Amino acid sequence: MTVNPIPSEPSQAIASFPFQWHSIWHALPLPGNVWPVFILWNQGVTMSTFGLIEYHDASPQVRAIYDDIMATRKTDWINNFWKAIAHDPALLQRTWDSIKQIMAPGALDPLTKELIYVAVSVTNNCRYCIASHTASAFGKGMTDAMFKELQAVIGMASETNKLVTGYQVEIDQRFQPPLSR
Amino acid sequence: MTVNPIPSEPSQAIASFPFQWHSIWHALPLPGNVWPVFILWNQGVTMSTFGLIEYHDASPQVRAIYDDIMATRKTDWINNFWKAIAHDPALLQRTWDSIKQIMAPGALDPLTKELIYVAVSVTNNCRYCIASHTASAFGKGMTDAMFKELQAVIGMASETNKLVTGYQVEIDQRFQPPLSR
Amino acid sequence: MTVNPIPSEPSQAIASFPFQWHSIWHALPLPGNVWPVFILWNQGVTMSTFGLIEYHDASPQVRAIYDDIMATRKTDWINNFWKAIAHDPALLQRTWDSIKQIMAPGALDPLTKELIYVAVSVTNNCRYCIASHTASAFGKGMTDAMFKELQAVIGMASETNKLVTGYQVEIDQRFQPPLSR
Amino acid sequence: MTVNPIPSEPSQAIASFPFQWHSIWHALPLPGNVWPVFILWNQGVTMSTFGLIEYHDASPQVRAIYDDIMATRKTDWINNFWKAIAHDPALLQRTWDSIKQIMAPGALDPLTKELIYVAVSVTNNCRYCIASHTASAFGKGMTDAMFKELQAVIGMASETNKLVTGYQVEIDQRFQPPLSR
Amino acid sequence: MTVNPIPSEPSQAIASFPFQWHSIWHALPLPGNVWPVFILWNQGVTMSTFGLIEYHDASPQVRAIYDDIMATRKTDWINNFWKAIAHDPALLQRTWDSIKQIMAPGALDPLTKELIYVAVSVTNNCRYCIASHTASAFGKGMTDAMFKELQAVIGMASETNKLVTGYQVEIDQRFQPPLSR
Amino acid sequence: MTVNPIPSEPSQAIASFPFQWHSIWHALPLPGNVWPVFILWNQGVTMSTFGLIEYHDASPQVRAIYDDIMATRKTDWINNFWKAIAHDPALLQRTWDSIKQIMAPGALDPLTKELIYVAVSVTNNCRYCIASHTASAFGKGMTDAMFKELQAVIGMASETNKLVTGYQVEIDQRFQPPLSR
Repeated sequence: MTVNPIPSEPSQAIASFPFQWHSIWHALPLPGNVWPVFILWNQGVTMSTFGLIEYHDASPQVRAIYDDIMATRKTDWINNFWKAIAHDPALLQRTWDSIKQIMAPGALDPLTKELIYVAVSVTNNCRYCIASHTASAFGKGMTDAMFKELQAVIGMASETNKLVTGYQVEIDQRFQPPLSR
Repeated sequence: MTVNPIPSEPSQAIASFPFQWHSIWHALPLPGNVWPVFILWNQGVTMSTFGLIEYHDASPQVRAIYDDIMATRKTDWINNFWKAIAHDPALLQRTWDSIKQIMAPGALDPLTKELIYVAVSVTNNCRYCIASHTASAFGKGMTDAMFKELQAVIGMASETNKLVTGYQVEIDQRFQPPLSR
Repeated sequence: MTVNPIPSEPSQAIASFPFQWHSIWHALPLPGNVWPVFILWNQGVTMSTFGLIEYHDASPQVRAIYDDIMATRKTDWINNFWKAIAHDPALLQRTWDSIKQIMAPGALDPLTKELIYVAVSVTNNCRYCIASHTASAFGKGMTDAMFKELQAVIGMASETNKLVTGYQVEIDQRFQPPLSR
Repeated sequence: MTVNPIPSEPSQAIASFPFQWHSIWHALPLPGNVWPVFILWNQGVTMSTFGLIEYHDASPQVRAIYDDIMATRKTDWINNFWKAIAHDPALLQRTWDSIKQIMAPGALDPLTKELIYVAVSVTNNCRYCIASHTASAFGKGMTDAMFKELQAVIGMASETNKLVTGYQVEIDQRFQPPLSR
Repeated sequence: MTVNPIPSEPSQAIASFPFQWHSIWHALPLPGNVWPVFILWNQGVTMSTFGLIEYHDASPQVRAIYDDIMATRKTDWINNFWKAIAHDPALLQRTWDSIKQIMAPGALDPLTKELIYVAVSVTNNCRYCIASHTASAFGKGMTDAMFKELQAVIGMASETNKLVTGYQVEIDQRFQPPLSR
Repeated sequence: MTVNPIPSEPSQAIASFPFQWHSIWHALPLPGNVWPVFILWNQGVTMSTFGLIEYHDASPQVRAIYDDIMATRKTDWINNFWKAIAHDPALLQRTWDSIKQIMAPGALDPLTKELIYVAVSVTNNCRYCIASHTASAFGKGMTDAMFKELQAVIGMASETNKLVTGYQVEIDQRFQPPLSR
């Protein structure tokens, strides 16, 4: 079975569990003779194939990329995606270099790029990506109203995409490149 | 057979063919006794299931919607999507009402909405939708540079969506709603 | 961390947890000095971006739509989808109006429409939609045998869709519209 | 180059071209000294990877399957899908056996199964499959009104699938199996 | 509510829970007066629509297929997929027969076939399939390095697929069948 | 209009058309006074949004990448994908660098990587990608038998992916990482 080793006392479980349950534990008005019950019902919850590489366990190469991610994003933490692919440092390097280049301000501003990222992720049904880029977009200034319009456009596009496909609509000549600007 | 009626002379074919071939015809240094050859190799080219309803063949209800589309878009033509779904006037009405409402300026400007529409359509691989909304986006002010950044973001998101999925990355607690703004 | 506030006693947690655990708690033959342990392992479980708007917290506009949903469906509860999109009342209104119109009996009966809804949702890999529309379909008379045939057709279509695509099969002229009926 | 052999006269091209162009040819008011011009602009039109195996070129094993397809479907022709995968007789056999079993009348009638097949194919964006199963569905009694409702449900489901996903809606406990019937 | 019946004592829960929690329970240094707390937070975790058919509950027909699966795979357990579709014995039989035939060594070795299976499953975003076939691939000799290259190719292909689509690239004549080998 | 410039005589069209029609033309038993008719029925055939950048029109930066592509692939031509994205030299550079690195021999051989590329492209329904990578795979040694097994696995995986999803199968604990190797 794929369970973490059972700790002999609660404090030992801190590192291996993905949340700070011990603080919750101590906040509970429990009598002294009650110990935590480890519930392992994580059916349906996948964990990253190779696990996550934390900063303190990372090689210097990986740590340098983590540092650059945090510096670029002006933040002090690394999200799971990077920790999961850090097992392949070449992939980590290549992906971060590309993301850094592509998501930087350009002809489109960073928030617009996040909205597009969310749109692709919703269409692809990638839950992690939706969660992380929705959070990112809020962090970059997306308002609630913008979120709602984003979702409405995604929904509408998804519907008309299928109506076009189901009715087998042929492309108008005017939509053929070269297109006037 | 799914051919347009054969015209008795070239000029009759103008309306029923999706391009102005007669101008090409006349530009060709052909002898007077050569007539156009209609090639029907349209294998792989679907045509809309029920065909397209042109303005002059439309019922008053459909014509009113066409009028509203053209007035709203400040244009004098209707693209195939509307002509194809006009066979179901309730669908036409509902879809146009929704599109008109959703794509209007709001918290997001119309161009940003078009970019999102293109992103969904590319992800869904809907060729008609890509062609029509790319044309629309150029019409609404998308520059070549913006198009390129849009595609780069779509491509990048598609790649990382799959890396996340393939590495089975679990969602960070910080990405769980409620999210800070 | 995105945890619910820790209740000072079990009964306080009833409202904020998505199940009636207190009845289970009291049914357990536990000694008096054991208190519930809140396990927060909800990794991988997203919660709706803006949370859910319950009936008693809803605006009159939203409440009226909820009332119409319950009346139309002859039920006394509202499922999470509506509560999640109720943050955008215009979207809620538009979506419910469309669903109500589209899913009503017509040339296709309501159960057939649910089967189609499930087929799209399975193909799109939308877990919420599969769960809710499978439940709906059973509610509208889908038998176990029908469920099984539905899944078999979905599976078969998914396979042949890809064989067609992989072998790059061109469309037969006979399948080109207009089609004989 | 992927062209058909050039015929010495028009009539020889009838069999190898996917349409009866000769009747069109003869209907054209062309002078006697004009011969057809074969335009090979098939860019964007894929042809099946291994080509199509026609009945008269088929092995006895493949021919027997073709015969069974035609007998079961009460028709006298084989569509391209079967001719394309006939290069792998084991696949042809397995696929036909499954299709024959799955699409036969059961708890769901054959037309309902075709509607589901179309729904999956539209969602998967498989143009061949949409064209062929739409034709099949009309052949099995789908009316124009049914087609329209089918497309409306597919479109609606595609939209709400994405709203659910984008708003990250969690599944209601009531939708969890076991489900009441 | 869709909970398992509450057991009167822990040992009764063994069969109905998907893990051997009792061994964990007994391994915990808990005082005698603490009983397990059943946490039912399974929101977002679907369970198979009809539940799972265990070997000892299976009909002789299903049991024979289970036996063949275990014999073929040289293993002593059956994974959930088979137990879930065993409610439709014809589907179980057909699917197992096909899988057994397709995944056997041939022109491609079994590991390569698993890699392809993972690639399709990641692209389809099927979490169960990714988890099970990734495990299978490791079981058949996939190394960590191979896993990483597999994911990199999937990610790259997903990106270029979308760049091709977004830029509307037309197919080169040289890629048209028949292809040289 | 999206036509090539009309040539004053047939021979001028050779370069700008994607096939050697002039050899066909001369092979036709046509009288001297017949000239070719250019049929522009390219409805349904998209052309790359910005057109294709040919080698002789390319900037030195783009030309250097083209040179590297041809040298790496030991070929003397560039396929449309590169010519289409060459309008964004940074994208061209980044994509080629990644492809070159990822598709090189490693833990997986180049042919296996092509098979995976095809599998993703078929699942994504990207026709260009299917056509080009199928051609590539044949070029790298894929036999007809391998192609057939590849397609069979893709088809099977697509079917079982959907059965898993439709039956809402939960992930077996044994498939949870960490996985044994």
